[in-house]
Amino acid sequence: MRTTTGWRAAGPNHVEHTVIKRRDLRPDDVAVRVDYCGVCHSDLQAMRGHVGPGPLVPGHEFTGVVRDTGAEVSSLRIGDRVAVGNIVDSCGECAMCAIGQENFCHDFPTLTYGGTDRHDSSTTLGAYSREYVVREAFAYRLPDGLDPASAAPLMCAGVTVWEPLRALDVGPSSRVAVVGFGGLGHLAVKFAAALGAATTVISRTEDKREDAHRLGAHDFIVSADSEQMRAARESFDVVIDTVSAPHDLSYYLGLVALDGTLEVLGYLGEVTLPVTDLLLGRKKLGAAGSGGRGATAEMLRFCADSGVVPEVEVLPSSQADIALDRLDRNDVRYRFVLDLSDLGE
Amino acid sequence: MRTTTGWRAAGPNHVEHTVIKRRDLRPDDVAVRVDYCGVCHSDLQAMRGHVGPGPLVPGHEFTGVVRDTGAEVSSLRIGDRVAVGNIVDSCGECAMCAIGQENFCHDFPTLTYGGTDRHDSSTTLGAYSREYVVREAFAYRLPDGLDPASAAPLMCAGVTVWEPLRALDVGPSSRVAVVGFGGLGHLAVKFAAALGAATTVISRTEDKREDAHRLGAHDFIVSADSEQMRAARESFDVVIDTVSAPHDLSYYLGLVALDGTLEVLGYLGEVTLPVTDLLLGRKKLGAAGSGGRGATAEMLRFCADSGVVPEVEVLPSSQADIALDRLDRNDVRYRFVLDLSDLGE
Repeated sequence: MRTTTGWRAAGPNHVEHTVIKRRDLRPDDVAVRVDYCGVCHSDLQAMRGHVGPGPLVPGHEFTGVVRDTGAEVSSLRIGDRVAVGNIVDSCGECAMCAIGQENFCHDFPTLTYGGTDRHDSSTTLGAYSREYVVREAFAYRLPDGLDPASAAPLMCAGVTVWEPLRALDVGPSSRVAVVGFGGLGHLAVKFAAALGAATTVISRTEDKREDAHRLGAHDFIVSADSEQMRAARESFDVVIDTVSAPHDLSYYLGLVALDGTLEVLGYLGEVTLPVTDLLLGRKKLGAAGSGGRGATAEMLRFCADSGVVPEVEVLPSSQADIALDRLDRNDVRYRFVLDLSDLGE
Repeated sequence: MRTTTGWRAAGPNHVEHTVIKRRDLRPDDVAVRVDYCGVCHSDLQAMRGHVGPGPLVPGHEFTGVVRDTGAEVSSLRIGDRVAVGNIVDSCGECAMCAIGQENFCHDFPTLTYGGTDRHDSSTTLGAYSREYVVREAFAYRLPDGLDPASAAPLMCAGVTVWEPLRALDVGPSSRVAVVGFGGLGHLAVKFAAALGAATTVISRTEDKREDAHRLGAHDFIVSADSEQMRAARESFDVVIDTVSAPHDLSYYLGLVALDGTLEVLGYLGEVTLPVTDLLLGRKKLGAAGSGGRGATAEMLRFCADSGVVPEVEVLPSSQADIALDRLDRNDVRYRFVLDLSDLGE
């Protein structure tokens, strides 16, 4: 086994320093020195729900450098810059894996932390850690020109919005609204605008209006203002819903134009709605999450070419608690990234 | 006022003969001698729920002949064969009306029966009747070659499946499944097959397998057979759901392929489902109903050109109770049509 250090959950919004064992490299594994890891909303949720057995080490959107390679690794070499997301393995055999949609693997993909390794059945430990061992197929080469700190959140928040925007064929003729302007939402705005879409932010208050325009939004609607909402009725082909708490989908379906789609990206619970909210206007309700290998690689290339990257605030990993607490209070613009170099080599 | 006769609701599955007043023709009205009127599932529901005040005369998919025209009618002449559906007016000014989607009129379209006339606020009375007065804009010329008896159900059941099939771009490369093989379902199969799609019927029992193939289906799955359902997992781009009773949508979402759509056409209540049923496979839930003027005219042309028409059983209108009762017991292949000529001229 390999030994590294990192941070494990020790209560809601609280981590403590820990020693972490990583597996010896299998033939198709690489060991990655983790340099930067984003702080995702699901880290908070996982920590809150964690009861064991075994430790929880959060972190599933990270960048770093390859520092060791298994005997059969052919696509990466020591010293290569890489990025890893929230999926580190899949069955590789089902219809979804066959088309590069490992996020929908019929045998369920192996998650970067809290997942079960397909070979030794161990529970995966995440990247709030100085080293991570991963199959080369799920370590993406970080294109030149992408800053590794700001690129880290692309690997979960980024691809979660990128993949559906592409699947929904968002482009210059699209009218896109983004509900919720946080980690996912601000990236949805940047991507949609960079793809050429007329992009509108729907936010609860006026607070983020300036930021929204600065990041590329063409319009801004305060969701609590029923007058503004009425004026925007049925005027968007795609409404990207990044709200993570339970909420009234019908309210946002009202914004969707004929044959348009309300795409739920932030909420994983149960939804209830009257069929007539879809029927009147022939609307669709969709959902997506995470990304496959194809879309992930495509997104990284697009970001390198277009200069789109997340807005991040970088903290040393020893300040993870501060990041978690501020994220919990929505005091983040727009993604925290932990710098793991304070853990040594 | 004009006077005609017809059949009004007198209890569930029961109608009685009645005299009906029709309005004097407005400048843009035509009077239609109703020859054939389809018996729709919503007729049953309306009769069951009817409490008055005023009579309920069902019937909203009919064909007939123009026998009188208002002073400004320009598109139709006395003697023209026409067809009328479940919408007889709309605001004409909203964004939906502007694009020929009067079925989604923001001011709600005027329904053929049980609706409220936009000019005199009277309650509309349907086409279980020898005459109907309607704005010329909502009386569609029946193309040559279409039999008026079998064409009648196109005007509700037909366009309700036609419009979403077109909106979902169903064609030769599509894999379409149709859940429920009744009035709507059998037309969905005929249309999908005629549009070139690989078409599968999903039915509760084996009973209709032969019919399904005869009407154009390429495959047939018994929904109660979990083995067959599992084998068909994620293999359809479009699943058309025509079931009118509350049912488990998740069961049929399992059939939808990546980026595909489950389109609900038969059920108008509330739906509840876990977001993950959409997320895993990036699926969509849609709904549609009725049709606008554009799609209705397009469908009639398509039927005349392709020879697609409903499978009907024609009964004299005096036997409406038999039709209603048998429809209620699902004893129909696949649509009853009332012949109104027994009411005289």
